[in-house]
Amino acid sequence: MSSVTIKQLAEQLQLSTATISKALGDSYEISESTKKRVLALAKELNYIPNAYAGSLRHNKSKTIGVLVPEVTDSFFSLALNGIEEVALEKGYHTLIYLTHEKLSREEAILKALVGGRVDGVIMSVTVETDSFGHIHEFNRHLPVVFFDRVCPEIDTAKITTDDFECGYKATQHLIEAGCHKIVLLSISNSLSIISERTKGFKKAIAEYNLNEDDCRIVNCTEDPQHNYELIKEMMQSDNRPDGILATVEKLTTEIYLACQHLNINIPGQVKVVCFSNQPSAIILTPSLTTITQPAFEMGKVAATTLLKLLKNNTLRLKDECTVIPSKLIIRNSTTGQVNDTII
Amino acid sequence: MSSVTIKQLAEQLQLSTATISKALGDSYEISESTKKRVLALAKELNYIPNAYAGSLRHNKSKTIGVLVPEVTDSFFSLALNGIEEVALEKGYHTLIYLTHEKLSREEAILKALVGGRVDGVIMSVTVETDSFGHIHEFNRHLPVVFFDRVCPEIDTAKITTDDFECGYKATQHLIEAGCHKIVLLSISNSLSIISERTKGFKKAIAEYNLNEDDCRIVNCTEDPQHNYELIKEMMQSDNRPDGILATVEKLTTEIYLACQHLNINIPGQVKVVCFSNQPSAIILTPSLTTITQPAFEMGKVAATTLLKLLKNNTLRLKDECTVIPSKLIIRNSTTGQVNDTII
Repeated sequence: MSSVTIKQLAEQLQLSTATISKALGDSYEISESTKKRVLALAKELNYIPNAYAGSLRHNKSKTIGVLVPEVTDSFFSLALNGIEEVALEKGYHTLIYLTHEKLSREEAILKALVGGRVDGVIMSVTVETDSFGHIHEFNRHLPVVFFDRVCPEIDTAKITTDDFECGYKATQHLIEAGCHKIVLLSISNSLSIISERTKGFKKAIAEYNLNEDDCRIVNCTEDPQHNYELIKEMMQSDNRPDGILATVEKLTTEIYLACQHLNINIPGQVKVVCFSNQPSAIILTPSLTTITQPAFEMGKVAATTLLKLLKNNTLRLKDECTVIPSKLIIRNSTTGQVNDTII
Repeated sequence: MSSVTIKQLAEQLQLSTATISKALGDSYEISESTKKRVLALAKELNYIPNAYAGSLRHNKSKTIGVLVPEVTDSFFSLALNGIEEVALEKGYHTLIYLTHEKLSREEAILKALVGGRVDGVIMSVTVETDSFGHIHEFNRHLPVVFFDRVCPEIDTAKITTDDFECGYKATQHLIEAGCHKIVLLSISNSLSIISERTKGFKKAIAEYNLNEDDCRIVNCTEDPQHNYELIKEMMQSDNRPDGILATVEKLTTEIYLACQHLNINIPGQVKVVCFSNQPSAIILTPSLTTITQPAFEMGKVAATTLLKLLKNNTLRLKDECTVIPSKLIIRNSTTGQVNDTII
């Protein structure tokens, strides 16, 4: 910690602490010659301003908080890069908080942040977030921008992608590739994005008159081993799907592994689409058909929205949803023949 | 922002602001009955403590800063989870800062953090960090723990893995699998980890008397497209390698893609080992032989080391290196036959 204080500078220069403070803050009230004397001594004694004291004075931390469930998912790591690019450009610090998909963490972090550590928050809620009191409470004091996983109940800016359309498009693609028994792998009943993707899935199933018992929703968890067993069991059942739509990236490994271990050919016996931003999608065998989200772009827009608000010094954001479309990228897991990639 | 202040609480209860402050801080100097009155009113008026003011008072932020180059690399995202697990348990906030591999970012972040925002820092330096003045300066004021990418010049705690041994082991494995022309793909000349891995590589090459012109080091960059072209060119050259050791995870995609596009069989024509913590390593075709680092564990040890120091209220950490070994996980990219996985 810095050992030189404003008080010491004041004593040595025989000035008041207020004068020192104003001189260091380049105030118009202080003469240039005094400023020079103060700065020279501050430099000589290696005085370091206390960031907290500065924040108290200006009532601004020039810092935004970002709450994401995890960074092991490519979507969130890319979105963070987008947020940081904008924040950096505008001279803001970014504090990244991981909720690890726990509602209790999300509540604790928001509660701690109300105190003044940040000027506003950009967040994507956890899979457990099925009540919103803590976000409402936070939003009474500081602005919130949602991205990806939003709370429809809270009136503020939301940056999303076209989850409903993508759920529909991905399912339609599987149907047109010949699938009749399509399973949607879900990870949550409450998350906005999953619920939208599921609605799109159901719409396609209904439109193409597929059997609703064959086309079902299977709930996965946060535990990879459990998901692997679940998928393996599903692939050994009498009602084995011929198409899988995975709503999150991390299920890819378990789907491929289960099929590999059961000698089930992708795409010959089951076609697979995942919501994923993983660069490795193109080097899997077969290469993976994905719904790829504009993660970096969504992060940029979220940060731009929040910083614009902070600049204008208003607390409330309009209840406005910005939708940036995702892309269906068709690869061999839904169309290709056996063995048409590496080898 | 909170509209109720300590002053208002004091006025309404006819107590001094110092008493209110101490009561809110659960000080032994204040009677239980007064504490109850203060807390009841604070709750009624929805008083929210100012985090910065609290920090000024205690001269502690109960916060640690973590500087990592990026989170799109599995190693760093897993290490962050390890750091957070320990910090959470000990009641500390974690502020994550991304340097995006830029020395200028690293300098700016450390400079900003000296002011009191954090009590100490855990960091892994950027690929550009070839001078250490800014870290020395920071370390004069606040403690630093390095993990993975360390600065040998700075006397403090360092948590690393056995990079030298792993460089050696991976190269030895390639040689014993029949490779004679092994290329090490590097991303930096200054990073401690890369330099250790390179030394291990060179030791194995010398021990097995391989030709040093055939076994060379190729420098990649931060640009995936450039790396892809570079690898493609290398694989089309007269002196085409029969073994590749990639020192960072993200080169995997470009290696597999270049080989795929050139119809070069892995492992038949070239064997591949990567330093990687990617879960997808097991579902690639062929599955990827990796040096897998104890990322989560390294994060945990780094956080434990820093928090122990903070608890003891000392500034200096002993110049001590904790080495947690990595694992060579042999898969089909160095041993298997064509087509022995999926299908």
